[in-house]
Amino acid sequence: MIQLNGIMPPLTTPFDAAGNLNLSGLAENVARYNDTGLIGYVALGSNGEAIHLSSSERLQVIETIKRASTPAHKIVAGVNEFSTRAAIEATRAASQAGADCALTITPYFYKSAMTSEVLKRFFHEVADASPIPILIYNVPQNTGVVIDSATIASLASHENIAGLKDSAGNIGTLSDTLRLVPAGFNVLVGNGGIVYPALSMGAGGAILAVACVAPRACVELFEAVGGGNHAKARELQNRLLPVAHIVTAGLGVAGLKAAMKAAGFCGGEPRAPLAGANEANLEKVKSVLRESGLFAHIE
Amino acid sequence: MIQLNGIMPPLTTPFDAAGNLNLSGLAENVARYNDTGLIGYVALGSNGEAIHLSSSERLQVIETIKRASTPAHKIVAGVNEFSTRAAIEATRAASQAGADCALTITPYFYKSAMTSEVLKRFFHEVADASPIPILIYNVPQNTGVVIDSATIASLASHENIAGLKDSAGNIGTLSDTLRLVPAGFNVLVGNGGIVYPALSMGAGGAILAVACVAPRACVELFEAVGGGNHAKARELQNRLLPVAHIVTAGLGVAGLKAAMKAAGFCGGEPRAPLAGANEANLEKVKSVLRESGLFAHIE
Amino acid sequence: MIQLNGIMPPLTTPFDAAGNLNLSGLAENVARYNDTGLIGYVALGSNGEAIHLSSSERLQVIETIKRASTPAHKIVAGVNEFSTRAAIEATRAASQAGADCALTITPYFYKSAMTSEVLKRFFHEVADASPIPILIYNVPQNTGVVIDSATIASLASHENIAGLKDSAGNIGTLSDTLRLVPAGFNVLVGNGGIVYPALSMGAGGAILAVACVAPRACVELFEAVGGGNHAKARELQNRLLPVAHIVTAGLGVAGLKAAMKAAGFCGGEPRAPLAGANEANLEKVKSVLRESGLFAHIE
Amino acid sequence: MIQLNGIMPPLTTPFDAAGNLNLSGLAENVARYNDTGLIGYVALGSNGEAIHLSSSERLQVIETIKRASTPAHKIVAGVNEFSTRAAIEATRAASQAGADCALTITPYFYKSAMTSEVLKRFFHEVADASPIPILIYNVPQNTGVVIDSATIASLASHENIAGLKDSAGNIGTLSDTLRLVPAGFNVLVGNGGIVYPALSMGAGGAILAVACVAPRACVELFEAVGGGNHAKARELQNRLLPVAHIVTAGLGVAGLKAAMKAAGFCGGEPRAPLAGANEANLEKVKSVLRESGLFAHIE
Repeated sequence: MIQLNGIMPPLTTPFDAAGNLNLSGLAENVARYNDTGLIGYVALGSNGEAIHLSSSERLQVIETIKRASTPAHKIVAGVNEFSTRAAIEATRAASQAGADCALTITPYFYKSAMTSEVLKRFFHEVADASPIPILIYNVPQNTGVVIDSATIASLASHENIAGLKDSAGNIGTLSDTLRLVPAGFNVLVGNGGIVYPALSMGAGGAILAVACVAPRACVELFEAVGGGNHAKARELQNRLLPVAHIVTAGLGVAGLKAAMKAAGFCGGEPRAPLAGANEANLEKVKSVLRESGLFAHIE
Repeated sequence: MIQLNGIMPPLTTPFDAAGNLNLSGLAENVARYNDTGLIGYVALGSNGEAIHLSSSERLQVIETIKRASTPAHKIVAGVNEFSTRAAIEATRAASQAGADCALTITPYFYKSAMTSEVLKRFFHEVADASPIPILIYNVPQNTGVVIDSATIASLASHENIAGLKDSAGNIGTLSDTLRLVPAGFNVLVGNGGIVYPALSMGAGGAILAVACVAPRACVELFEAVGGGNHAKARELQNRLLPVAHIVTAGLGVAGLKAAMKAAGFCGGEPRAPLAGANEANLEKVKSVLRESGLFAHIE
Repeated sequence: MIQLNGIMPPLTTPFDAAGNLNLSGLAENVARYNDTGLIGYVALGSNGEAIHLSSSERLQVIETIKRASTPAHKIVAGVNEFSTRAAIEATRAASQAGADCALTITPYFYKSAMTSEVLKRFFHEVADASPIPILIYNVPQNTGVVIDSATIASLASHENIAGLKDSAGNIGTLSDTLRLVPAGFNVLVGNGGIVYPALSMGAGGAILAVACVAPRACVELFEAVGGGNHAKARELQNRLLPVAHIVTAGLGVAGLKAAMKAAGFCGGEPRAPLAGANEANLEKVKSVLRESGLFAHIE
Repeated sequence: MIQLNGIMPPLTTPFDAAGNLNLSGLAENVARYNDTGLIGYVALGSNGEAIHLSSSERLQVIETIKRASTPAHKIVAGVNEFSTRAAIEATRAASQAGADCALTITPYFYKSAMTSEVLKRFFHEVADASPIPILIYNVPQNTGVVIDSATIASLASHENIAGLKDSAGNIGTLSDTLRLVPAGFNVLVGNGGIVYPALSMGAGGAILAVACVAPRACVELFEAVGGGNHAKARELQNRLLPVAHIVTAGLGVAGLKAAMKAAGFCGGEPRAPLAGANEANLEKVKSVLRESGLFAHIE
């Protein structure tokens, strides 16, 4: 089974001034990330604005990332669909475009119908048909749907379900999941604010928005935990905490793109209806980056 | 401006045993509804499983309804998109397929970013570009996003924003909206359990899942309020209440389709991951329909 | 069984500048209310700051209201306790102080333990031991606990449970409760913003914060519904709506007390930690009162 | 300033068959705890059913714990009041009864009024008047009120505010609080499921329901983190996790008392309306205790 032990960034999707895909900007970002110690890239996640892209744009994004990365980097592609049939189709398209793995979100429109049984059937059917392994994506702050530890543990026995990205931010629940799943099942934490505690409890890796901005610090934190250097891990966690907050719960995708720009990457604005960071928020972002001490120079 | 004073059902989308569109079943349902006093049809709403359909299926659904209905019936098409550009495109496609009006949902993935300002810009830009008038669709139980009365009142001055479908179920908020919007702005209530109170407070019409099952009773309730017969309206509301509950909050789309079948319409099962009503739920549905006294015969 | 068909205000508790009970202010308010058509008074409700009063202060409040009112007015006393034994004791003390009825809140500290079974047992045991009939008090916005229609319907068969004050503000649920309880069971709505719809659906009466400010308008609305004058009821509801909002969800007890002062009653500030209305909020309150057209003169 | 670096249990309050205080049972529990390495005792917390006790019972509980403990043990007394004046009075009574510190809950009835400003004023005024240092108690699952990290950081500069018990269970927020408060401010985590991550991030101690059942394991976990033995800490955390869950979110106070009995302590039932654990839940509790491997013998 695929192993994802390390840090991956959920890549943002840059747009040009007209709001069209800026694929060269995306490729440049990937090129810059390639030698930072990241183990792979997530395309089309929540921070990648998958839901703002057409089907063909989604494939272009995956292909661009694939081309710009190295053979050593894993490509994880988000699958953000509501019907089982559309989710299966998306795993096939992602595979053809070069993805190694499909990060499949819990369906979330008919929230009250998303019982444990319904979610189990959904993930089983998608995994049965998908040409690539799938990761379960739990992100209640966007979906309003929670998939619980027992359901995940049950799904973990499917040979084509390779793991979980848990962005719920609840370390107690995450610990319980870790306790219940078999060794080798990839439990990836999705919140930059709790990555050290999550790795301490045994999470295998992390998918972190903050890694789009500060990839080295995230990788160093991962390595510090692996090497038993808890003091260093905690210090890095404390530095990352406010940065992670402002690029997620704080200002969302607009804040993440602004922070990327401030840190020298290709940023830009999200697609409407999301608004770009205004001047005040831009200053706030820069100030948080500066205070973290993680960046040599923030203009 | 288009006037929608009356009852419309949010049509379900029937599928065959293989899970493909059953357009003849849809057309038969519309034919049966045509002489029940309904003023129009809503395609591709929450109960129409819009999110389970591909783009081309969505157009087929609109076209089928258009063909099966009469010139007197309005066709309202759901627009369920996350980006402004995709929403605009959907209004154009809906218009070409025959829709008179576009029921446009609040974007809902980046919930915390959906401020009043962002929602205003979204609806303005969609309305500016849409070839047909739009209705704002507020359905927090599915979206986790609320659009407040003041925001709606502000949007109501746009000449291509024709009204609101409010499915939040809060009569206090709905009354406040009614108080704030100009005359002629279509405020349509979206909950069968509060239609009499909503009409009493001045709502112009209603889009009701329960009208897919019991169209005549809904129309009679509307007419009773219009004619000042409050005793009759209340009695009908009481009969409709448990039916409306079981086909929405109770059992969802699966329950609605089961109830339609029990009442002689083409029902069927929803698309996966939604599960069809099981035997126990089917019996519960039938029992609720029988006890309502609204149906001559439930098998 | 006691019948409560009409309007009652949940009386605020005035304090002097030192924060001590101002019983003469309370008595003056009651004297002014006596000939406005209100059928009784609620002491020690949410708006009465029961939780800010000591046990002996609570009794003084009941006794003061009893003395200042007329024999025709019912006295309802709030019981706001967490243990069954304390609630029973409070009903006895309230009865001795002159209360006719005990408005008993659902316990709410151990929220997840407040199942239907636990709530049934609680209300049964309190009702068994109470020397006066009890009303169930459902106010989820303060308690975080909801008591559902089926549970209420089951409790309604207890001979010493005389009714329900429902402040949840959900007219669909309230209609369902009305459908399920026996005739004579007092279903009292607790939200000034939905009183006309609630009475239209069959609620027997109302306990309204806005009736502390505009008692006559509330009584006239009640009489309009009784007399079948729906146009007048709706007009009054529309006038009351913004006033009701600002003295409850808008500004809370501080807003209610400020509005009472503006309308010529004894108002004052709530007890700490609640803060009194600041200058800006005071102006807002006055402006809302003026715009309602319900007051001859707002200074 | 008082330092609380270690583990404290929030003692349950035992009742006899008639529902009266069982103070000898309480004293026996404390005597058994005295040599387990706990640094103190919390009286009248959420698990102590403070809200089910009369004022005089509360003082008896504090006095009993004080008498049964040793001079080396700190006594922390819960203050669970809604008004500032009642909270101040409770700190005085607690001090006279022997408490070293007052664990003061955020007021929680008027939830929407509990702004940062209001909470700051409340804690300042209580701390100004209290004869003993106070701890802020944040427990949103019971109160529905959250006090944020910035507010706590601001309060931390008051010389009589000695710390925080945070039971919200959010390690990201807790980490942020730790980052913002001055050294020496006691940040105590209140969830047994996240104690290792919280201590890793720098929390000074913990108040844990599970420490009423398994005091030694909790103390050993604390010492393991202090000694840099992360492997042992994680193993203990994993063993404690399901026990901690079932005695809090799982079955609440009833489950905690049942677990204490199974582990050889004086347990008993909570006061009504809380129900004791039924036979099925009792078996579940025992099975969880057995599987944890933390107990020599569970009958």
